[in-house]
Amino acid sequence: MKIGDEGFVPLDVPVETRDIYRENYREITHGRGRLMLFAGDQKIEHLNDDFMGPGIHPDDADPEHLFRIAARGRIGVFATQLGLISRYGMDYGNVPYLVKLNSKTNLRKTADQDPFSPMLHTVGDVVRFRDRSGLSIRAVGYTVYPGSEFESEMLRQAARIVVSAHRYGLVTVLWMYPRGKSVRDETAPHLVAGAAGIAAALGSDFAKVNVPEKDGVQVPELLKEATNAGGRTKIICSGGPSVDEAQFLKGLYNQIHLGGTSGNATGRNIHQKSLQEAVRMCDAIAAISLDDTGPDEALKIIGK
Amino acid sequence: MKIGDEGFVPLDVPVETRDIYRENYREITHGRGRLMLFAGDQKIEHLNDDFMGPGIHPDDADPEHLFRIAARGRIGVFATQLGLISRYGMDYGNVPYLVKLNSKTNLRKTADQDPFSPMLHTVGDVVRFRDRSGLSIRAVGYTVYPGSEFESEMLRQAARIVVSAHRYGLVTVLWMYPRGKSVRDETAPHLVAGAAGIAAALGSDFAKVNVPEKDGVQVPELLKEATNAGGRTKIICSGGPSVDEAQFLKGLYNQIHLGGTSGNATGRNIHQKSLQEAVRMCDAIAAISLDDTGPDEALKIIGK
Amino acid sequence: MKIGDEGFVPLDVPVETRDIYRENYREITHGRGRLMLFAGDQKIEHLNDDFMGPGIHPDDADPEHLFRIAARGRIGVFATQLGLISRYGMDYGNVPYLVKLNSKTNLRKTADQDPFSPMLHTVGDVVRFRDRSGLSIRAVGYTVYPGSEFESEMLRQAARIVVSAHRYGLVTVLWMYPRGKSVRDETAPHLVAGAAGIAAALGSDFAKVNVPEKDGVQVPELLKEATNAGGRTKIICSGGPSVDEAQFLKGLYNQIHLGGTSGNATGRNIHQKSLQEAVRMCDAIAAISLDDTGPDEALKIIGK
Amino acid sequence: MKIGDEGFVPLDVPVETRDIYRENYREITHGRGRLMLFAGDQKIEHLNDDFMGPGIHPDDADPEHLFRIAARGRIGVFATQLGLISRYGMDYGNVPYLVKLNSKTNLRKTADQDPFSPMLHTVGDVVRFRDRSGLSIRAVGYTVYPGSEFESEMLRQAARIVVSAHRYGLVTVLWMYPRGKSVRDETAPHLVAGAAGIAAALGSDFAKVNVPEKDGVQVPELLKEATNAGGRTKIICSGGPSVDEAQFLKGLYNQIHLGGTSGNATGRNIHQKSLQEAVRMCDAIAAISLDDTGPDEALKIIGK
Amino acid sequence: MKIGDEGFVPLDVPVETRDIYRENYREITHGRGRLMLFAGDQKIEHLNDDFMGPGIHPDDADPEHLFRIAARGRIGVFATQLGLISRYGMDYGNVPYLVKLNSKTNLRKTADQDPFSPMLHTVGDVVRFRDRSGLSIRAVGYTVYPGSEFESEMLRQAARIVVSAHRYGLVTVLWMYPRGKSVRDETAPHLVAGAAGIAAALGSDFAKVNVPEKDGVQVPELLKEATNAGGRTKIICSGGPSVDEAQFLKGLYNQIHLGGTSGNATGRNIHQKSLQEAVRMCDAIAAISLDDTGPDEALKIIGK
Repeated sequence: MKIGDEGFVPLDVPVETRDIYRENYREITHGRGRLMLFAGDQKIEHLNDDFMGPGIHPDDADPEHLFRIAARGRIGVFATQLGLISRYGMDYGNVPYLVKLNSKTNLRKTADQDPFSPMLHTVGDVVRFRDRSGLSIRAVGYTVYPGSEFESEMLRQAARIVVSAHRYGLVTVLWMYPRGKSVRDETAPHLVAGAAGIAAALGSDFAKVNVPEKDGVQVPELLKEATNAGGRTKIICSGGPSVDEAQFLKGLYNQIHLGGTSGNATGRNIHQKSLQEAVRMCDAIAAISLDDTGPDEALKIIGK
Repeated sequence: MKIGDEGFVPLDVPVETRDIYRENYREITHGRGRLMLFAGDQKIEHLNDDFMGPGIHPDDADPEHLFRIAARGRIGVFATQLGLISRYGMDYGNVPYLVKLNSKTNLRKTADQDPFSPMLHTVGDVVRFRDRSGLSIRAVGYTVYPGSEFESEMLRQAARIVVSAHRYGLVTVLWMYPRGKSVRDETAPHLVAGAAGIAAALGSDFAKVNVPEKDGVQVPELLKEATNAGGRTKIICSGGPSVDEAQFLKGLYNQIHLGGTSGNATGRNIHQKSLQEAVRMCDAIAAISLDDTGPDEALKIIGK
Repeated sequence: MKIGDEGFVPLDVPVETRDIYRENYREITHGRGRLMLFAGDQKIEHLNDDFMGPGIHPDDADPEHLFRIAARGRIGVFATQLGLISRYGMDYGNVPYLVKLNSKTNLRKTADQDPFSPMLHTVGDVVRFRDRSGLSIRAVGYTVYPGSEFESEMLRQAARIVVSAHRYGLVTVLWMYPRGKSVRDETAPHLVAGAAGIAAALGSDFAKVNVPEKDGVQVPELLKEATNAGGRTKIICSGGPSVDEAQFLKGLYNQIHLGGTSGNATGRNIHQKSLQEAVRMCDAIAAISLDDTGPDEALKIIGK
Repeated sequence: MKIGDEGFVPLDVPVETRDIYRENYREITHGRGRLMLFAGDQKIEHLNDDFMGPGIHPDDADPEHLFRIAARGRIGVFATQLGLISRYGMDYGNVPYLVKLNSKTNLRKTADQDPFSPMLHTVGDVVRFRDRSGLSIRAVGYTVYPGSEFESEMLRQAARIVVSAHRYGLVTVLWMYPRGKSVRDETAPHLVAGAAGIAAALGSDFAKVNVPEKDGVQVPELLKEATNAGGRTKIICSGGPSVDEAQFLKGLYNQIHLGGTSGNATGRNIHQKSLQEAVRMCDAIAAISLDDTGPDEALKIIGK
Repeated sequence: MKIGDEGFVPLDVPVETRDIYRENYREITHGRGRLMLFAGDQKIEHLNDDFMGPGIHPDDADPEHLFRIAARGRIGVFATQLGLISRYGMDYGNVPYLVKLNSKTNLRKTADQDPFSPMLHTVGDVVRFRDRSGLSIRAVGYTVYPGSEFESEMLRQAARIVVSAHRYGLVTVLWMYPRGKSVRDETAPHLVAGAAGIAAALGSDFAKVNVPEKDGVQVPELLKEATNAGGRTKIICSGGPSVDEAQFLKGLYNQIHLGGTSGNATGRNIHQKSLQEAVRMCDAIAAISLDDTGPDEALKIIGK
């Protein structure tokens, strides 16, 4: 492991909140320096596409499904918007939350307009919400689209968010997705590594990046350049490309063990299942991410 | 009913204003968890088109007509701009108000420019106005146009408005209208559901959406996807498509009982009538929205 | 008269400044609820076009001409920019002033760019200036161009200006000029009424609108729709279309008595004359506006 | 003289800084109500074009040349950027300074983009700098480009700068240059007068305008319209069009005596000479501007 | 030497932080008035291009490589983003840091969009970080692209950064790179001098400029115009054009001794080597920059 996880605190965390930061970091990484992030911010990002349609279990039509999974599955953190947490959190007080600070819809395509996704809430809003609600708000997240015409404003917001979050002891995750009319190949290994490096320069604790592809196929080994480039900023991906659980889990295992990643961020591959299956999927993903369980053994957890 | 209305308070409402929130919510929903919203913000949105013309009663030419209706009809809340309230409220102190925070004219068409409708006033302005005037300002409203080129700024404003309003105990209603050159079918059921989901992610108490259409005909049953997607954010629509009262009331009844909506937002179908007829129309709509009265019986209220 | 002028105070005027508001309103309306506004903001709006050229008296070349007229003519309020007041006000302490908060030049045409005219000064600047200078600053004004590409920002500024001005007891006048590439007919009666309705929704005390035209000819009777739509926001126009005094005064009389307006806003038809003639013209206009003098009798005041 | 210079204080100067304003005004006008402004802000405006090239004395390559001239020549005020003053002011403590608040380079041409030159520093920055440094910072300056696509923001900044500067007792100079794709003839007399009128409406103490031209030839007499339009805002120009000293001085004399201007703003015609010649040129220009010396006698001062 | 380095303090440094400024300046210039700046901000500017690829030592793949060099090589200051410092600084407490305040990626080309690189952090953020971390943060840096469509905002930010940094005693370095569709030849000597002059007008302590070229070849002597134009703002460049160490060092020597520069800013030519070689390269560059060592002797330091 590249950094001494237990004691590591970035220098922009002031003395008075270092204990909070350490606790937040330890809790969401289960003391293992790895992150199992359950992503549930798609109601803005993808509208209702991820929640209703062929192959999606009817349970997923109700937003509460996400909270039910988060409460029962083995996760590090559940990432969603503040508004949703404000309406379900009172019934899901044991869930560790990451507030996703920005979101955009998929209605405008990149061909029409480069992506821009400014903050919906400030870190100050999140801290006040944490203190008012008493919930375990442990982290914040933000998506940057390097290469977009609006890159500059998103880089600026990301930089400020990291400093603000650390000031209050919150852990940070940046989603780093190069995108825009100037970006030709979003999954080129060298570009993915560049995205990881930006997150490092911005001082984030974690960065989610795309899995690099070669000839249209994900190659976990190619993540090595990105995990090197990230340095003390840990890299996570979204698991294998397939909805086939075996392939998904194997991909994730290879990302960690061949690519050097430190966990995963998974959404649809979990919540589009029934509650019971979703919880098992969480547990299988967590076993790989946190316990270094092999993919075959993990497959048994989901009963396959 | 999906949520325990009487006790439900979102977690972004701080302890010290929870009682205010509960009272506001109870008052505007008549203790039944349903909203009868009388919409009177069209003087900016549609200029004078809704107030003068063929089929519009001369009473409607005077803005005070709206207040006269609001004072005598059975409504949950009267939605209009702060400026208008500031000039008539002294004579209509018993009306429950929702301040509509943004408005745009219809002069520029979507083909010329994607819609953008930023805040005219802040929630702080509204709270100060409430406290200065002593009026029953119980809610705020805001329109979002997902898919517009200016979506990001409107999402940001909506998110901040919800948090600010809840901070002061005000109830929130978001008008969610996907619109812009990238939006092809504004009444597609799946898109309407997506709009409802955005409002949920933004943490609003209510969201007004379009009634989904199939082959150009409104189909209340198709609202089910949206009311599911909204989760604990309740969905309202604007009643049936027709100016024919029978059809209108039947449409509204089906929206609630087949589509799962929690009330209505109605403007022109009320205020374009004479005062007496408008008040009866209010009462009929309220009977369906709040008392589960059937459309035929409701029709009797308006004397038809 | 639609509202009880003597006592009327909008609800966004706080208790502590209601007396100031009442005094300001009474002073500029001469206790008659009508406004005689002498407009002198053209040095930015029209550069030197209104002050030097064929048919313009040489007196008008010097900005002080405006102040000399304002000091001797019978007016309700003299509208001009803060900067000009700051350099002449010490010699014209008895003039009642309206600070025009925004202005743009006429160099860029609507065909090149939709009009945008943001605030030069804030209401706070005006209040500080009032208190420092001891002048009778009684009102503020702002121009909105509905239909412009920049409409949203101007609506926002106008809304905030009304609330701020009322907070300090100042009376507000909004110039409502639909304009932009999307606006085809700026003097259509229905559009003029729409503009009046916007001012009402923004809560302004007065709104200046264009006189509606039919086949290119001003028709004062057609103002009736606008004065209805304005409701408790009073409507003023700029007098008849002609530089012929008789026609001008007759037009103004008809605006008030057939169209229902509550005064006038007149600039060039006054200040392009010699001082003596300009003062007489003021007095004639004031007689019609404030005393319901007929146009023929008013014509005698100017000695014609 | 149009205004009583000795006592004149604009009304936006608060009581507590009136003495500072009076002193600043008296010092930079040498008690004669006329301004000899030495302009040295070209390092941003024209990059190194004015400081190195054919016909430019090698002394001018070093920025300190400007300060050496300002310290020895007879000037009213030396106008340059705050940054330059911060690095040389300690050795030139006796120079009266005007801080030029905005600047743009000449790299983008008007054909590519209308000019925009926002503030580099605020008046607050200048006041703090004055108080920290103890230098004689007596005025601030700002360039407005009426007719530019970005006119509105520059008008706004200019208006705020005047009010802020006066608040602290600083004198203001606005450079008024109509420019942009919509402006056809920047030196048309009527347009120059319009520019002067804008400065008056903005409340500036001085405005620098272009010398009006007829058939491409400067005609000082044509400034009369502008100096009238400026009213109590005094007008200055940049001296004759030529690098020939005799023509330059004669042009300046005529501007004042035929055009009614109140001084000059001169840069290149001074600093492109050797130190000794530059100082003499200053003295000659000052003699005309401040003492009403004739051009022939002034020519003797520079030894020609 | 043009200015008395030991005692020189710009006038925008307030009395209370002059000692801090003097110490910072002395430390990063090794008391010799020359700057050896090790540039490590390329993880955003060039993504991973500078850290992985042909001819780049594998050591460079890890961001910590930069810190290892900075800790062992003889440098004046290590320039990188705040985020990276926050994650490695605890292990590299003896390094003198310059926080680079803005950065952009190279994904969008100038042909697509003129460069814009706004601040990621404010000077206030840096000062708080300095005080929290106890690190030797001694300077801040910012890149300006004169000639870009977005020039005005960058000039404004640069001006404010200089004043803010000096307020807290921090030294400033501006990277001055004319760029944009309006800029034809970025290395023309006259334009480079113009860029230096802008930095002087902005009041920066140091400015990095391009080495002027003639027929595509760098000519250190041509820097003389720029170092003159900079005046009391010292100029640095990035060393010779080649990766050949002998040429690089000779170029650097000539820049200083023929072009009048005051140091260097070097990145890739250092960090793309192995740790040992990178440290030696640092030492060789420092010998030339600080000790006036000749290029042949400096070459011995790197063992060639």
